[in-house]
Amino acid sequence: MMRFSSLDDIRSALAALPGPDAGALAAARARDAVLTKPPGALGRLEELAAWYASWRGTGRPVLEHPQIAVFAGNHGVAARGVSAFPAEVTAQMVANFEAGGAAINQLATAFGASMSVVALELDRPVADFTQGPAMNGAEVAAAMEAGRAALDPAADLLIVGEMGIGNTTSAAALAAALWGGAGADWVGRGTGVDDAGLARKAAAVDAGLARHGAALDDPLEALACLGGRELAAMAGAILAARMARVPVILDGFIACAAASVLERAGPGALDHAVAGHLSAEGAHGRLLEKLGKRPLLDLGLRLGEGSGAAVALGVLRAALACHSGMATFAEAGVSGG
Amino acid sequence: MMRFSSLDDIRSALAALPGPDAGALAAARARDAVLTKPPGALGRLEELAAWYASWRGTGRPVLEHPQIAVFAGNHGVAARGVSAFPAEVTAQMVANFEAGGAAINQLATAFGASMSVVALELDRPVADFTQGPAMNGAEVAAAMEAGRAALDPAADLLIVGEMGIGNTTSAAALAAALWGGAGADWVGRGTGVDDAGLARKAAAVDAGLARHGAALDDPLEALACLGGRELAAMAGAILAARMARVPVILDGFIACAAASVLERAGPGALDHAVAGHLSAEGAHGRLLEKLGKRPLLDLGLRLGEGSGAAVALGVLRAALACHSGMATFAEAGVSGG
Repeated sequence: MMRFSSLDDIRSALAALPGPDAGALAAARARDAVLTKPPGALGRLEELAAWYASWRGTGRPVLEHPQIAVFAGNHGVAARGVSAFPAEVTAQMVANFEAGGAAINQLATAFGASMSVVALELDRPVADFTQGPAMNGAEVAAAMEAGRAALDPAADLLIVGEMGIGNTTSAAALAAALWGGAGADWVGRGTGVDDAGLARKAAAVDAGLARHGAALDDPLEALACLGGRELAAMAGAILAARMARVPVILDGFIACAAASVLERAGPGALDHAVAGHLSAEGAHGRLLEKLGKRPLLDLGLRLGEGSGAAVALGVLRAALACHSGMATFAEAGVSGG
Repeated sequence: MMRFSSLDDIRSALAALPGPDAGALAAARARDAVLTKPPGALGRLEELAAWYASWRGTGRPVLEHPQIAVFAGNHGVAARGVSAFPAEVTAQMVANFEAGGAAINQLATAFGASMSVVALELDRPVADFTQGPAMNGAEVAAAMEAGRAALDPAADLLIVGEMGIGNTTSAAALAAALWGGAGADWVGRGTGVDDAGLARKAAAVDAGLARHGAALDDPLEALACLGGRELAAMAGAILAARMARVPVILDGFIACAAASVLERAGPGALDHAVAGHLSAEGAHGRLLEKLGKRPLLDLGLRLGEGSGAAVALGVLRAALACHSGMATFAEAGVSGG
């Protein structure tokens, strides 16, 4: 697969996105119609299996190598009192991921996914976006390349997660730049800030929007101005997955803000992705509406790390187990309806 | 465990239900508070782990032997044109369960549950409840005993499912008898009946309610008058699980109608049960409201067999994996908020 050496490489990739396999989709639907159940009785599991089949190019797909990739980055804006936790927690949690102690580790094991962690220059936070661009173009490209390189060539399903103290503020700013609205429309309590912290988040977002102005009209420039390295890496990994026809389960607010860069830069760029869950982070529902995605789960999670998407991996496993494993009416000698 | 030899045995069991373990609940909450995540960030997974812990009597429980038990029965009322499928499908699907070809088989495998199938006198359907009682007291007790006996002594989680052509009509009649309302309030399309079939279902329920009158005031009598053997067996298994402090994940409309017998006969009798999902079968949402249960999933399933609860088993696995597997702040050297 082509490397992302510059933002031009990324624009080229977005201009030549592969689509789903119509033949595989038809084959999956034909198979579904003869499985030993009433038509439609498995509800959204049926849609999910057909969607997955269409991207994998086979009417009877099996999930063998789901991958969870977690990206971590630090944020200059964290110094503005926008998080309930100190910035050193980013590196501490990376160590926790590496030691297997975090929620996402347990979920990866529970649902049979591989897990990798990529720490992105934690000692060098991106600049405070209220003061200037968080990253330059080369830094964005490098972070997106790190995301691309993290995709396992054997993966047949990708989940991207993140860790980064201050990154719900960065994600809110990016969402506002990409979809419109002000800070108050997009900020939430993140890891649990109080009312004063919430007001500081909204003010930081508004300051960022005002500072960068028209530069935010271009989605990749908006990512440079407001994003963090982990957001860029998530976008790079999701784009790389599309190029390899690897389906994606989107996690919560931050992952969806990062993914929104792709959708705004290349409409349809997230057709290979489903929304894993509706997060309790305030504006995630609004972001999913903008993306036209209906979440699979609504369990009040707001942890990040890819955790909501990882729980939804269980739903995808259920869908594919039924679709590809069930007997047909003819095989089982069951009378049709 | 005591056998259910008569309805009196069942009434005795309902009068002496064990409760949750307050100490284990407190221990689970204390553990949750020090895990490496912001407080509350795992949303309903946190509640679910604490609930499970409270019934298993330990603050750090592990799920080792989840069991799915599927009960099958036939219904005299099926002759009234209330199903999209012919009655012989019940036995054909039992063969499919035994051969491993049904949806529930795939889900059991996907989520590591054992699965057993109990066919309840399929050659002798219960009587048409519009003409007289579906079962007598001895038949109800025998079916509930079959449910009790199906509970694996090693099980640490139970899901009960069902198969029985015509049984959404029986379940609707039972729901109406237990919770009030008429046929039209409780019938749905089941496996997929058309408008005329739906009208026949509502008429059958109304005829049953009219025929049995005041006999329906007693929940166990209502089960006898309107239920099927598989509904009684499900109620028996859920009651036996309570006696053994085995948590239960409830499936859809039929399972919840059967479970409602216990709740109406002994309020609080379903405290050891959570609602796995909201089914697409019309009145399931109303039934869950009556039971005071909020579903974990809403995926449009309407298959029965225990399938929705089995998908929710994945959510419980996620909750327990996080709760019992994650590192604490102290263990991981992560700074608290």
